[in-house]
Order: sequence, then structure tokens, then C-alpha cells
Amino acid sequence: MKKAAICTIGDEILIGQIIDTNSSHIAKALNTLGIRVSTMTSIGDERDQILGQLNQLLQEHDLIITTGGLGPTKDDITKRALGELYGSTSTYEHPQQAAVVRNLLTCRGVPLFQSNLDQAVVPTGCEVLVNQLGTAPGLVFRFPQERYSHCPTLYSLPGVPFEAIGLLDSVLHDIQQHQMLVPIVHKTWSTFGIAESTLSEMIADWEDHLPENFHLAYLPNTINGVRLRLSCYGAQSEDTLTRIEQEFEKIRPILGTALYSQDETSLPEAVGQLLRSRSATVATAESCTCGRVAHLLGSIPGASKYLFGGTIAYSNSVKINQLKVPTETINKDGAVSQQCVESMARGTIELYGTTYAVASSGIAGPGGGTKEKPVGLVWIAVASRLKDGTIKTIAQSFNFRGDRERNMERFAANAINLLRLAMMDTCI
Amino acid sequence: MKKAAICTIGDEILIGQIIDTNSSHIAKALNTLGIRVSTMTSIGDERDQILGQLNQLLQEHDLIITTGGLGPTKDDITKRALGELYGSTSTYEHPQQAAVVRNLLTCRGVPLFQSNLDQAVVPTGCEVLVNQLGTAPGLVFRFPQERYSHCPTLYSLPGVPFEAIGLLDSVLHDIQQHQMLVPIVHKTWSTFGIAESTLSEMIADWEDHLPENFHLAYLPNTINGVRLRLSCYGAQSEDTLTRIEQEFEKIRPILGTALYSQDETSLPEAVGQLLRSRSATVATAESCTCGRVAHLLGSIPGASKYLFGGTIAYSNSVKINQLKVPTETINKDGAVSQQCVESMARGTIELYGTTYAVASSGIAGPGGGTKEKPVGLVWIAVASRLKDGTIKTIAQSFNFRGDRERNMERFAANAINLLRLAMMDTCI
Repeated sequence: MKKAAICTIGDEILIGQIIDTNSSHIAKALNTLGIRVSTMTSIGDERDQILGQLNQLLQEHDLIITTGGLGPTKDDITKRALGELYGSTSTYEHPQQAAVVRNLLTCRGVPLFQSNLDQAVVPTGCEVLVNQLGTAPGLVFRFPQERYSHCPTLYSLPGVPFEAIGLLDSVLHDIQQHQMLVPIVHKTWSTFGIAESTLSEMIADWEDHLPENFHLAYLPNTINGVRLRLSCYGAQSEDTLTRIEQEFEKIRPILGTALYSQDETSLPEAVGQLLRSRSATVATAESCTCGRVAHLLGSIPGASKYLFGGTIAYSNSVKINQLKVPTETINKDGAVSQQCVESMARGTIELYGTTYAVASSGIAGPGGGTKEKPVGLVWIAVASRLKDGTIKTIAQSFNFRGDRERNMERFAANAINLLRLAMMDTCI
Repeated sequence: MKKAAICTIGDEILIGQIIDTNSSHIAKALNTLGIRVSTMTSIGDERDQILGQLNQLLQEHDLIITTGGLGPTKDDITKRALGELYGSTSTYEHPQQAAVVRNLLTCRGVPLFQSNLDQAVVPTGCEVLVNQLGTAPGLVFRFPQERYSHCPTLYSLPGVPFEAIGLLDSVLHDIQQHQMLVPIVHKTWSTFGIAESTLSEMIADWEDHLPENFHLAYLPNTINGVRLRLSCYGAQSEDTLTRIEQEFEKIRPILGTALYSQDETSLPEAVGQLLRSRSATVATAESCTCGRVAHLLGSIPGASKYLFGGTIAYSNSVKINQLKVPTETINKDGAVSQQCVESMARGTIELYGTTYAVASSGIAGPGGGTKEKPVGLVWIAVASRLKDGTIKTIAQSFNFRGDRERNMERFAANAINLLRLAMMDTCI
């Protein structure tokens, strides 16, 4: 298996100013190709450190991907260090990248300085991956065998996440063209509602009996639940994917309604697809989640097809006045109760005239909990408009233990999941 | 200046399953103490790699902080490797941590297994930082001079972010007690609405004339704008903070209303404080931001004091029916227009009966833009209820260039900032 290292260059990471998201993204992509990332490292914008670290990584790895250190002010340091490491004797302005630089600045109506064009200057001998989204290109350095006793390749990408990610496909393509990779086939199933540890117990027997070259990975996420990725290494035949699917099918009855997609679709996307396929619409009523449910649904491009809107009923007066929750319900059962959320969902489906409405009311914390209704408790309800015009509601409560932010995320994800379950349960 | 390294241990980082946020958090804290983080690194749960990497880091650094590798399943590997590296000859169950383990599991109503108690087992000779929030303690290894020719200290923390952060204060305290640190004093001012590059030009002259031991850092963030951190190194006298404040005061007129706090208060927090200090209330009306404005305001503990609620008016029918935007406005000026957002803000302040209302309508993308109204355009309005009962509205438009998610974030942050500016502008 090929061994890779990811190296982030830039002081802004080391002072904790920004969180490095590039490395995780790149690692995931390399992993999908069956390449093992054995180390990630962040270093500063300093010649000696760059040379020392990269030299060491090149000795021990087949592939190195660096991000960062290519901005207009720091440009010289990283690019010079890379040229020096590679043994380039000079630099030149790369015509295609220079054209992109000119074009980008013209579009933005910004004057063109020499420092901008310097971004398109590259060391001789390396290959260039033209960056259409920014000024600094990606660079490919293939080191000859006499240098490190093997032939490592170093890819240098800009640090701006969307530029790095934009060039990643070219990097992956290049890797596939130049490296002898062990064939690998992946298939992901996405589930929501079963904790990772419980899930692993539920399917332990199946997992134990997987063929030897099959590997199962659990990929948990607050919003998207637990994804199961089944990978087959060294697969040569064309029906590998079919074999993976057949293995997966064996656990389908165990997963039940927790299974929401047979790929990496996110939970809000899956719910959006379900709504679109039914030409259905939805509105939200949120107390504790305070807009997060709507925001998650609305973050999917094209959400305007099914998301009408919603009411953030943070104060009880909004629940009463706009969503027509009876004052008595609030007084008797409380704002965090099955009665209240069901009433909110009904009020919302009427107010917005949608097919579905999802409502949440809980205690996110840090304050506000009691022994009966502790911080982390949430009630969620979904109202569905049936064919005959009647409204059906379902409700569920959850108890979590987290800080305010984490509770709000989990409340919102579970609200979206209950909407999904309600849709599966109702023919409209 | 003391030199530190941060090392994350765990396969889940290397396969890109989770993003490492601990390192950034720790780096920021160390930086505040005047300690330079020279490298961050992530390695797998593998004895040889752990020993090799840590041994190397210990040679080159005064302080090493590791996170991760202490979970119940992987416990042995990291803890054994650390004990081996340190030269511990045996292990023992740490009574205080074992008590926490017992107590935590009892509270959760979960049966206690030996594997849980094993979490409280530590190598002899190291010091223990009891973890009250989880089962694995923090460990402190002080290496003697004969080993590395200097006396490095290694802190091992659990990987779960809130547990790592929970123990970080103890680590910082320990560092301050045991290390001869160069005295350092920081002061942060927070601004919103001026881009980092523009800001740096505006205050370039002042920055150039700062005393030699003063250092200015720009800390940009989508939601919170640009923070300016002024640090004074080697300060001995007690009036250093006053001197820093005096330096900052010189640029106050340049910053103008962009300055929203003289510390690290977040923008939503600052707006919350402003609302509370005026006993004012607010409601939101969101189209393109789809709940994000309310969610940011609502994420602040105690937001129920001022946030009444809001309407997510994603579809035009909601704008018309609930927020009383005239159909004519939508038809003539469009949903993304000054007229529409002002109307939304007025409708919302009436509907919710609040002191303020903030409304947004824009094109987040990827689709939906035109030449006149491109993707990235947003109109924001704030309605204020004046003393005499009249409603005053202000509106502003912004043009951004980003993907859907980034646009929504910037729209929301600017909506919150316009609310702040409106408040500063109106006496109620």
C-alpha cells in the first residue's frame, strides 16, 4: 500500500488562527484511493523548517501533498524552498497561470501588480497544475530514484481551501496515472438514529464473517449519523461492487429505517430528495434549535423547491400568537412537552399550508434545566397532511448530554430525521 | 522563547474522518503565554510511530502536548508507549481518576466494566491531571536533563475536544509554574466591516511606529470580523496593559464604528449585550440566510432574554402573507431589493412587537443569479422602534463571491452587524 504524508505550511495554523481543514479533506480522498496517510504535519513559513521537514517526509513516503505557503506575501519562501529541494536552477512565468492571474484580477476590477504575476512564476523542471480559482498554481515535483532510493512525488497546493480542493481532483488523477495502486472499491451506506457502538454490536456477527479483503469503516457525524463504508482491497473483477452490495444487503433488515441512503448523501439532502420526489413542501417551527433545522434544510442547493419557510418560536408568546399553541398547554404541560410540539407542528402546517411541518422544543442549556426536564431534553414533532386532508402528528423525545452548541446540533439533526421517518410512514 | 510541539494521536484523524480542532485551540492558548508552537503533527495509533515521533519532538522542543490515543479500545497503545518512553517500570490505578470513572458511569446508568477502570491506570512516575469530564486522565511527564540535554515536559490529554479543553487550563497553569516564560501581555480589540487588507493599510502608519517589544496580530473570522491583538513581550512593569490600551486608543478614531468590543467578545455576543443593556428585544426575518441569523443570536446562552423569534420567509408567499410585504414590491423590485427587505423588517417588528427587527434577502447560489443581481448579492434591513413609537428602517447591500455556505455565513454576519450599527444609531 502506498504511503503518503500531508504537510501544511503556514504560521496562521501554528498560532491557532485557523483550523486546518485541507488535511482532513485530502486524507479522505487519498484513503478512498487506497493510499494510507501515515502522518500529517504543520510547519511555519520558514525556509529551514520547510526544507528539513519535506526532506525527511520524502525519505519515508511515496507521496507528499503540501498546502499553503503560496500566498502573495509568502510566496517566495515556500516556492524557493521547493525549487531548492528539487534542484531547480531557475524560475519562469508559467503562461497559462499568468493568463488566469490577469483574467481574475480584471474580473474583480483590481489593478494588476508585479507581485500578482509573480504568483505564476514556477521553478523549472516541475509540472504545473493550473489553478483556475486563484493566482497560485499547483506544482508537481517527481524526484528521481537516485535521490531517495525510491521515487517520491511531491504535490504543492495553495492553502485557500476552495483552491486546494479545486486542484485535488487533478492531483488524484495524476496519482492514479503514475502510481501502481492496489485496486480498491468502496461503497457507503448512511444511517441515522443508531449510536456507533450499538450499531457495531448489532452487525458484529456479519462484520466478523466478511471476506478477508473486505474492510468496514464506521464514519460517525453529528448531522449525518453513522456512515458505513465497505471497502474491497485488491479487487480485480468487475463485479466487486455487486459483491459489496450483496454483503451490505445482508444487514439491511438489521438497519431497518435507520438506513437513509446507499451513498454519501447527507441527511438534509436525503430529506430534500424525498420531499422533491413527492412534490411535497415543508415548514419548520423551532424553539431551542433557533433556526438550525431550517438552516440545515436550506443549505442544500435548490431547497426553495420544498422549503417554504418557518417560524422561530423562541418565546412562548410566539408559540401562542403565531403557532396557535393553547396558553393552557404551555401552562399545564410546559413549552418542552409532547403536547406543545405537536401543537406547534399543527399550527405551522396550517400557517404555511405545507405538506409537512417539523417542530422542536427543548432545553439546550447551559441553564434552564430541572430534574424532570434536564438540560439536553428535546421534544420533536412532525405534522403530515394526509391525502384525505387530515393532519397526522407524531412526536418523539430525546435526552442528550452536551454543551449548548452540541445539543442544538443534535436536536436539529434528530428533527430532520423524524421528518424523514414521518415521510416514510405516510403516503401522500 | 519556549518552543512547543503539538501531536495528535489517532487513526481517525489520518483517514480524514474527523478534523483536528484541538491543536488549533491549544496553539492559541500557548501563543497567549508567549510560547511558540513550531510544529503540529498527527500520527496513527501505532507504538513504533508514537515512540519515534515523540522521541524526536522531545529532542527539539521544550514542551510537547499530545491529544488522543487514550480511548478505552486504544488505551494500551499510547499509554504503554508513553510509559516506555519515560522509563516507567509499572502502572497503577489512580484512585481519584478511578473514583471519577465510577461516578460518571453510575450517573449515566451504565454498567462498570474493568475496561472502564483501566482508563484510570497510569504509568508510575508521571503526574496525573484528573479529568472530571471523562474517564481518561491527563498525564504529565517531566524528562530529566540527562535524557535530552534539556528538560522537556510532555503533557498527554484525551482526544475528545471538550475533555482536552477542560484539562488545558491545568496544563497552562502547570506550564506557568514550571517554565521560565518571557512575560507577555495581550489585549484584543474586535472589529467588523473592514477587510483585513484594508484595515492593515488604514493603520499601517500606527503599526510601523509601535514600540519595539509590541507586536500586532490580525485574527480574521467570517462571523466575528477582524480581531486585532496587541502583545507586549518582556513586559515587567504593572502598567503594561495601560500602555497597550494607550497605543490602541490612538487608532480608535480610524476604526470608528467598526470597533465593537475591546476584548474577544463574539459579534453575536456583543449584539446580545447591547440588547440586554437596553432591555430591548429583537426578531428576525430571513430569506437567503434561512435561519442562520437567528441561530447565531440564539447560540448565546441567555438569548431568550432578547430574542423573541423570527420568520424564515424563504418563499415569497411567506414574505407576503406573514410579513405583509406588498405583492407589488416583489413583482416590481424583486425579493432581493431594498424595498423588499425594508418591508420585511417593518412587517417583522409589527408581527413580533419587538424593539428591533433584522431582515435579509439575497442570492446565496449556486443558481439563481442574474447580471443585475448576481450570486453573492444580499440586501439587509433593520427596523428600530423609536421612543415616540415610530419605526425607522435602514438598509444596506453587499456583494460577496463565495459558495452557498460561505455566502450564507457572510450574509448572516453582516445582518447581525447592521443590527449593531442600527442600535448604536438609535436611542430607544
